[in-house]
Amino acid sequence: MQFTEEVFSRNLRAVNGSAIRDIFKLLGKPGMISFAGGNPSNAALEPQVIAPIAAEVIEMIGAPVLQYGGTEGFMPLRESAAAFLRTSGVVCEASQILPTQGSTQAIDLLLKALVDPGDTVLCESPTFLGTIQAMRTYGANIVSVPTDEEGMIPEAAEEAIRKHHPKLLYIIPSFQNPTGVTLSLERRKAIAALGAKYGVVIAEDDPYRDLRYSGEALPSIQSFDEEGWVVYLSSFSKLISPGMRVGCAVVKPATLLRKMVIGKQSTDVHSPQLNQAIVDNYLRKGLLPAHIERICGLYREQLAAMLEGFSAFPDGTSHTTPQGGLFVWARLPEGLDAQKLLQKAVEANVAFVPGMHFYPEGGNANTLRLNFSNSEVPQIREGMARLAEVLKRG
Amino acid sequence: MQFTEEVFSRNLRAVNGSAIRDIFKLLGKPGMISFAGGNPSNAALEPQVIAPIAAEVIEMIGAPVLQYGGTEGFMPLRESAAAFLRTSGVVCEASQILPTQGSTQAIDLLLKALVDPGDTVLCESPTFLGTIQAMRTYGANIVSVPTDEEGMIPEAAEEAIRKHHPKLLYIIPSFQNPTGVTLSLERRKAIAALGAKYGVVIAEDDPYRDLRYSGEALPSIQSFDEEGWVVYLSSFSKLISPGMRVGCAVVKPATLLRKMVIGKQSTDVHSPQLNQAIVDNYLRKGLLPAHIERICGLYREQLAAMLEGFSAFPDGTSHTTPQGGLFVWARLPEGLDAQKLLQKAVEANVAFVPGMHFYPEGGNANTLRLNFSNSEVPQIREGMARLAEVLKRG
Repeated sequence: MQFTEEVFSRNLRAVNGSAIRDIFKLLGKPGMISFAGGNPSNAALEPQVIAPIAAEVIEMIGAPVLQYGGTEGFMPLRESAAAFLRTSGVVCEASQILPTQGSTQAIDLLLKALVDPGDTVLCESPTFLGTIQAMRTYGANIVSVPTDEEGMIPEAAEEAIRKHHPKLLYIIPSFQNPTGVTLSLERRKAIAALGAKYGVVIAEDDPYRDLRYSGEALPSIQSFDEEGWVVYLSSFSKLISPGMRVGCAVVKPATLLRKMVIGKQSTDVHSPQLNQAIVDNYLRKGLLPAHIERICGLYREQLAAMLEGFSAFPDGTSHTTPQGGLFVWARLPEGLDAQKLLQKAVEANVAFVPGMHFYPEGGNANTLRLNFSNSEVPQIREGMARLAEVLKRG
Repeated sequence: MQFTEEVFSRNLRAVNGSAIRDIFKLLGKPGMISFAGGNPSNAALEPQVIAPIAAEVIEMIGAPVLQYGGTEGFMPLRESAAAFLRTSGVVCEASQILPTQGSTQAIDLLLKALVDPGDTVLCESPTFLGTIQAMRTYGANIVSVPTDEEGMIPEAAEEAIRKHHPKLLYIIPSFQNPTGVTLSLERRKAIAALGAKYGVVIAEDDPYRDLRYSGEALPSIQSFDEEGWVVYLSSFSKLISPGMRVGCAVVKPATLLRKMVIGKQSTDVHSPQLNQAIVDNYLRKGLLPAHIERICGLYREQLAAMLEGFSAFPDGTSHTTPQGGLFVWARLPEGLDAQKLLQKAVEANVAFVPGMHFYPEGGNANTLRLNFSNSEVPQIREGMARLAEVLKRG
């Protein structure tokens, strides 16, 4: 059989997935200290807590937990997720919650509902590479909006909206992936206002919000939006378990929610009942606040170790100093190439993701993303020392 | 906020999802005997077996079962699913298995990989309405191929292939949804040959295969395909649990598997580790053969009760006599309208799905699909008597 490239759809022909594949490869090698990926620490996962909960919900609910469920989601989880999100300052009711397979599926369903090939979508420059790939699978025209140390620049976003009439503005406001930067309060208000002013759906992707190690929590963009243009995306991946694949979208316009439900019907019918019931039970037992406090304690130390490690990097290296999340973003002296550095780093058993993958238009060869959640403090010290050594050798 | 219809993508604008929504509504009403839906019987589900397995796999695997997994799937499940499928005469290796969220997601990923708006896809006339909806969300030109009591007619399929140059031929060979008809041995060979002859991917959707209550098992279409054009879709939904959302695709061309993996990366990253581990453990414990025998015993009686019930239907009613699966298909005397019948039936507390929803082009107003798996024998007798009474009253 010969499968020529022409067999594939135009959208998929344009996507080779190699950036994400390369990251997965970097994670697996034995002895590797990996600052690639965005995995939580295994120490932050609680099999001993989840095992009895899994058994409990199956015994308690019985056959219906194994039966088909509604596409709109498991109602107890819609209620408990709404209650949890309200404590984080998200304005929502259970009927506006659509449980999804992580926030990744919520992004996919928004793209499916809104975007035709050639339609423009806006994102931060840089932004999460998984979202860039998802946008490409819909043939979107991706336009990135400049950011600075306070996140996306609203004036630049407004200019891009006027020029490109986008269908969607995608933004990660808290401890952004990949930069770790947090959108300031004034900008949250300004971005929210743009949605209503221009009729643009804003996807506020906020999976890291509760992983704050210093500073004060900020209200969501969604809380400043009175007209429903902001769709808030949350996930339990970084808080409870990524392997469980439970996230949710808060969708206020009933027509938009309906189209996302139709999209979900056709892609997976519904999210697994069991996984929704486990997260619901975990939330109702009140386990999340103490767990968040514990993992924030771990990650705070890990972030500090990573930041210290930059002191041995060459002069002219700059890096962000995030107040939370999973990532630090670094910019090497002009002329250095993170892709070439990566080859040498992998030989020295330390890995990261070159920053170019987070720019829809490429470039920025001297940037890199470093993850600190998936390594213990001694590994982080050792890994940063190895990176500094590789940089010094040139 | 005003969300006008123009906000939505062209593909989603064309899909209103009301047929599927109506079916879900019919399932829920208290006192209703529902022959709508395709749910297994609650008596066929085993919470008492699955609860300890869930706890066991989480304790045994530990943190990695809660961690991110690979898009290609949980390797132990890929191995155990391949072993199970080989006993059903599917030719496959673990590396060709892509675990999916039921076979629904496998269909979605095939469409995503292969179909541009306007591309033709072929299916049986009638076919599963969920697949029709999925095809519509990709803007496919759906062309249905005539069927008879032996399933899709290969000569008609060949004519449609020559005329329309389709990207995909979708077929449910065993106890078809909605008709219950099984594709004959000679036709399996003939359909397999068409894939290689014309370079058309054939999606062999076979979730009911092991639910056989009489007659002899037939080899899969895939087993006659030496060139890899047949993608075999299987699901544990009808055998173990639909709510768990575990199915898989057997994809032989590496390039096609790669594009489906990229599609899955962007839609949900990976299937939940826990659900894959539970199904894997269930298979490795060797529980499936005895369970299939038990549920086939239940469903055999339920099917017989439903078939008996037709004796009270008006003269001129015809129906299929399936050897397995979940559905019986009926054709009422010419001039009767199943949609109007449904309204009266629902008043009498019995429900079914009007057959028109299973034809991409509509029509066939006098047909209906009846599900027997989700009702006990006494309910089936009562429900069929109610339907006969409603028909008699006219």
